[in-house]
Amino acid sequence: MSNKRITKRSEDYTQWYLDVIEAAELAEHSIVRGCMVIKPHGYAIWENIQKVLDKKIKDTGHKNAYFPLFVPKSTMNKEAAHVKGFAKECAIVTHYRLKDAGEGKGVVVDPEAKLQDELIVRPTSEAIMYETFSTWIQSWRDLPLLINQWANIVRWEMRTRLFLRTTEFLWQEGHTVHATHKESEQEVFKMLNVYKDVVENYLAIPVYAGKKSKVESFPGAIRTYSIEALMQDGKALQSGTSHDLGDNFSKAFNIKFADKDGEIKHPWQTSWGLSTRIIGGLIMSHSDDKGLVLPPKITPIQVVIIPVFATENREQVVGKAMECKKELEKENIPVEVDDREYETVGSKFNEWEKKGIPVRIEIGTKEIEENKATLVSRINSEKTQVSTEHLVDEVKKLLENIQKELFNRAKERLESQTYEVEDYEEFKDVIKNKGGFVRAFWCENEECEATIKDETKATTRVLPFDAKEESGKCIYCGKEAKYKWLFALAY
Amino acid sequence: MSNKRITKRSEDYTQWYLDVIEAAELAEHSIVRGCMVIKPHGYAIWENIQKVLDKKIKDTGHKNAYFPLFVPKSTMNKEAAHVKGFAKECAIVTHYRLKDAGEGKGVVVDPEAKLQDELIVRPTSEAIMYETFSTWIQSWRDLPLLINQWANIVRWEMRTRLFLRTTEFLWQEGHTVHATHKESEQEVFKMLNVYKDVVENYLAIPVYAGKKSKVESFPGAIRTYSIEALMQDGKALQSGTSHDLGDNFSKAFNIKFADKDGEIKHPWQTSWGLSTRIIGGLIMSHSDDKGLVLPPKITPIQVVIIPVFATENREQVVGKAMECKKELEKENIPVEVDDREYETVGSKFNEWEKKGIPVRIEIGTKEIEENKATLVSRINSEKTQVSTEHLVDEVKKLLENIQKELFNRAKERLESQTYEVEDYEEFKDVIKNKGGFVRAFWCENEECEATIKDETKATTRVLPFDAKEESGKCIYCGKEAKYKWLFALAY
Repeated sequence: MSNKRITKRSEDYTQWYLDVIEAAELAEHSIVRGCMVIKPHGYAIWENIQKVLDKKIKDTGHKNAYFPLFVPKSTMNKEAAHVKGFAKECAIVTHYRLKDAGEGKGVVVDPEAKLQDELIVRPTSEAIMYETFSTWIQSWRDLPLLINQWANIVRWEMRTRLFLRTTEFLWQEGHTVHATHKESEQEVFKMLNVYKDVVENYLAIPVYAGKKSKVESFPGAIRTYSIEALMQDGKALQSGTSHDLGDNFSKAFNIKFADKDGEIKHPWQTSWGLSTRIIGGLIMSHSDDKGLVLPPKITPIQVVIIPVFATENREQVVGKAMECKKELEKENIPVEVDDREYETVGSKFNEWEKKGIPVRIEIGTKEIEENKATLVSRINSEKTQVSTEHLVDEVKKLLENIQKELFNRAKERLESQTYEVEDYEEFKDVIKNKGGFVRAFWCENEECEATIKDETKATTRVLPFDAKEESGKCIYCGKEAKYKWLFALAY
Repeated sequence: MSNKRITKRSEDYTQWYLDVIEAAELAEHSIVRGCMVIKPHGYAIWENIQKVLDKKIKDTGHKNAYFPLFVPKSTMNKEAAHVKGFAKECAIVTHYRLKDAGEGKGVVVDPEAKLQDELIVRPTSEAIMYETFSTWIQSWRDLPLLINQWANIVRWEMRTRLFLRTTEFLWQEGHTVHATHKESEQEVFKMLNVYKDVVENYLAIPVYAGKKSKVESFPGAIRTYSIEALMQDGKALQSGTSHDLGDNFSKAFNIKFADKDGEIKHPWQTSWGLSTRIIGGLIMSHSDDKGLVLPPKITPIQVVIIPVFATENREQVVGKAMECKKELEKENIPVEVDDREYETVGSKFNEWEKKGIPVRIEIGTKEIEENKATLVSRINSEKTQVSTEHLVDEVKKLLENIQKELFNRAKERLESQTYEVEDYEEFKDVIKNKGGFVRAFWCENEECEATIKDETKATTRVLPFDAKEESGKCIYCGKEAKYKWLFALAY
């Protein structure tokens, strides 16, 4: 158990984030630069995200498969923009054997075992998958090809932060191939919507969805779409991306199919991914100065029961707690009883609060006498006494309310911290002093985008799908602009 | 769909194995030497194995976590026997950046981005995990620590074979830490039993369980236990291992705890793993000259419905098939309807047979008229007509029978191909001409073991748990021997 004191958000948000992760025992830095250890509580959250998302990926017709961890350098080289985008952050396997260093000095890399074509640890799997896809696809009958992979990914990051940016991370990556661009575009939107659904309705994080600017797009894609969430400190977090790859990769990897009309064509591709980064977003959306707060639909444990006993009535109180556990488990509510003897009740309350468990049930002598249980909500510390016969219903109701309330709070924040600005001065003022999303006209010229980023650190996040065509002036250069884009400081 | 013709087992067993994998679309070689692509049907089998095993791992109190893909060379060096055992098969990351080669030649490894302490792609995770465990464990309260990880593993193999031996493979690895050796020993046996349970009762593969010889044990373990299955060609397959690590690693990695008695002690550790290799065993246990055969409890699809229609009654027949599908799905039977128009019924039968789906249901005009369905068992091609109102029950019965029958067949083979031999001549004769397991006295001297292996290629598989202490003579050297060990040629 962690005795970590948690820094207040108002004192130091960055430190608070790290403290919550430590206190909730979600993850920690490993001895490998930039790589984290995902601890059981953190990993169980990831498993729940996987479960929800995997079902939706399968329900939309995709099949899971597994492709190699390594991409030969020569293969990575095939799509020029793609390799350029990842070259600076690749871990490279150059040798395949160690040998005894002699003199009891352990092992060294064996220079004799050098690879001709070095292997890149996948920074994403377009190259390695599409090399194979080119052999799988011959005819329109082989399309659409709808593949998903759950995998570990390595991108050599110079500055890392637990969950948000780590050298190794876990994700799913969908890769699909279609006969027409119209169909592949539909796929791109469909999967972005699946992400929006999971992130909003399970993780309780409201998002903006839309198109990324060219500069912020995936290397090799013709267009990238994303969902963008707002953290409590007013920074945006890109939470899932879906790429329209056009026929860039099918040309580079020579993927072809005989269409119904007999013509040989290059098919159209998409890829889309969601990673362990979202756990960083989850933490920063809901948690408070007491620690982690988890939405009921994604928490590994929804209810913790703390039997409050003395030595003489331990058996009776724990017995009652176990009965309640059984009742709740009948309704598929994941519940734990904390009956450790060597911890005080106070430190148990504290620990489960830090871990973000939505509902605490206290059962002591008084509760047993009155045939009641005390429910405590993690998000507002409200206590309610309920009779044990209504326990299951009351717990369910409370869980539902917490789920809703977390979403509503975050939604309210998202909306109240989205500002419309008229000119660049106001833009700079909001970014500097308020944070949040800023809606502003942009001419879509990359130079303006780059200068705004240089001067304010704010980047274009998305052109929201619901943005209306208007007639305005770019806040930076004053030239004609059709749309208001969303800008923000971002993780 | 694969049009692969499958070589007969009697002609060439090795080729048959590869043909089945190709015809059933389970996996294929990738462009990365020794790494495979696990195709959707193969991956779905792995997912089902994961589902069953993961539940049992959790039900026995273990928690999943995730540790880095990379092990620093200096960390790997800490346990001498361990690093020695894996040194020859390590993929090593030496650089972390590519750079433009100039002249449009793509990218090359940037020599400036060289790592001081090279990173080994994990060939197993003892070293990287135990480095961390040493910081997690201080007191008896932190024990037992029961961790499991689902991960990809890389061992640079010179000769690879799909599923059985690949450079990258998938597995779970359990790693536990206990206060006493007695407790860690119990864990070792408990988890070997979980493997036996999963392999026998779900994959329908009967096994021998027992202790490995010193030479065949895991590098760094004080004892290794395994389950051993028998393939149709008379070769053994090690199908899951559980290691008693003693306190070797806790000493090497400086893991210590304050015990209840106040003393600082090194704890006792175990590790245990089961990998995608088992899919090779699954294929070679049950499949036949027509292709893959899958046990109902592990197949991704238990039932395939083939509507047999002409253009004029397509709608009616497919409608009926869909009705049956719904009925079966209500009872959680995974079922697919193959209503493709561009494939003949014959090639559909063929395809699903190759893919090993246990039950085929044929529905055509005749079946509709008589309100019946025709069930066909994958394992004996027997056809039965059942009235649609009893369809679900009949399908369930058939699935149960297939599961039992597959296990019984394999069990019968295991038993009838386990031979007791009296002397070395007989030993050599059985290994050469019959295959299977050979039970023989062995003095437990490593030289005898090595010479027997040199001369016959047979290795010690296990000393079975139920072996009785006897008084005999080593079949090789004639010296005193207490136990009959199991020998076999092995994958």
